[in-house]
Amino acid sequence: MRILGIDPGTAVTGIGLIESRGTEIKLIHFESLHLNSKQLLTIRLKLIYDKCINCIKEFKPDQLVVETAFYGKNIQSTLKLGQARGVAIIAGLNSDLNVSEYSPREVKKSVTGNGASTKHQVQYMVKAILGIKEDLTDFDCTDALAVAMCHVYSCQNLFKFPSGNGRSSWTKFVENNPAKNLDRKSK
Amino acid sequence: MRILGIDPGTAVTGIGLIESRGTEIKLIHFESLHLNSKQLLTIRLKLIYDKCINCIKEFKPDQLVVETAFYGKNIQSTLKLGQARGVAIIAGLNSDLNVSEYSPREVKKSVTGNGASTKHQVQYMVKAILGIKEDLTDFDCTDALAVAMCHVYSCQNLFKFPSGNGRSSWTKFVENNPAKNLDRKSK
Repeated sequence: MRILGIDPGTAVTGIGLIESRGTEIKLIHFESLHLNSKQLLTIRLKLIYDKCINCIKEFKPDQLVVETAFYGKNIQSTLKLGQARGVAIIAGLNSDLNVSEYSPREVKKSVTGNGASTKHQVQYMVKAILGIKEDLTDFDCTDALAVAMCHVYSCQNLFKFPSGNGRSSWTKFVENNPAKNLDRKSK
Repeated sequence: MRILGIDPGTAVTGIGLIESRGTEIKLIHFESLHLNSKQLLTIRLKLIYDKCINCIKEFKPDQLVVETAFYGKNIQSTLKLGQARGVAIIAGLNSDLNVSEYSPREVKKSVTGNGASTKHQVQYMVKAILGIKEDLTDFDCTDALAVAMCHVYSCQNLFKFPSGNGRSSWTKFVENNPAKNLDRKSK
């Protein structure tokens, strides 16, 4: 199975392609699409879309994967990030690919074993697992490769969150501990 | 000139098509695409994209217009809104349309004469100008028609902001009034 991981952004979009055969994961391709902040946002969105479509045509992945629910530094950058994500997702859907999403916590947990690990730790593990020797100046490619690897591990059931899903853990915790929730509210 | 205005949203996406000939504006079509909140967000994004593409194929507009910089109620809804906007913009660009953006203030100012008018006032004016008799239960179609009308008025230079552009008015104000800016900082 070939997986295209995308780390979308209107400044830099990271792209990572891997192939999984059994328990082996092979690196196919990675690159960063650097976008000129002086260009119109609409032009940058089109460049991201076209880059995704070209990668899909060239490398023929079976699946596109993006991270869910990563928020920008402020509301303006969150809106831009949302637009870049929407464009990457629609590039996959328009190419008849399955599109999956994983939370940042799931991605980190699956790659490093720790859902709270740093970007440096994720990059270190991605490079070690995929045998990348180059010095990388940014995290965009390795973040894209990490989300693709997360999908492989998830399909192989190689990682599990205590609650079954990192996103619902607080809700489940409160359900199981109503007294703690009341304590919290009464503060 | 035919203009497709889009008011993107992952709950409801408003669509409005108008045609301008000289100073006359004619209503061509309007509709609301209601999306099921229980459906996966990726599916809803694809439905928005396909709806935009189908409208472009059917009504052959020359231009797609969306509002800039409208923020959702919270960061989660802003991210979703961003994705819907990105998808609408890319539908226009993939169909070789020009894509323009106007701020909510510019849209309101151009349609009602007041940049701070309410959604009800915008709807009232849109219905009056385009001769829409139906009772509308939501603002999505009229917001989409309003942004399309804003583009017509902008092209005809029928409205102007005191500073020339609503978005840069504070910056220009500070440039022209450096003392006021210092007062503000020293508080």
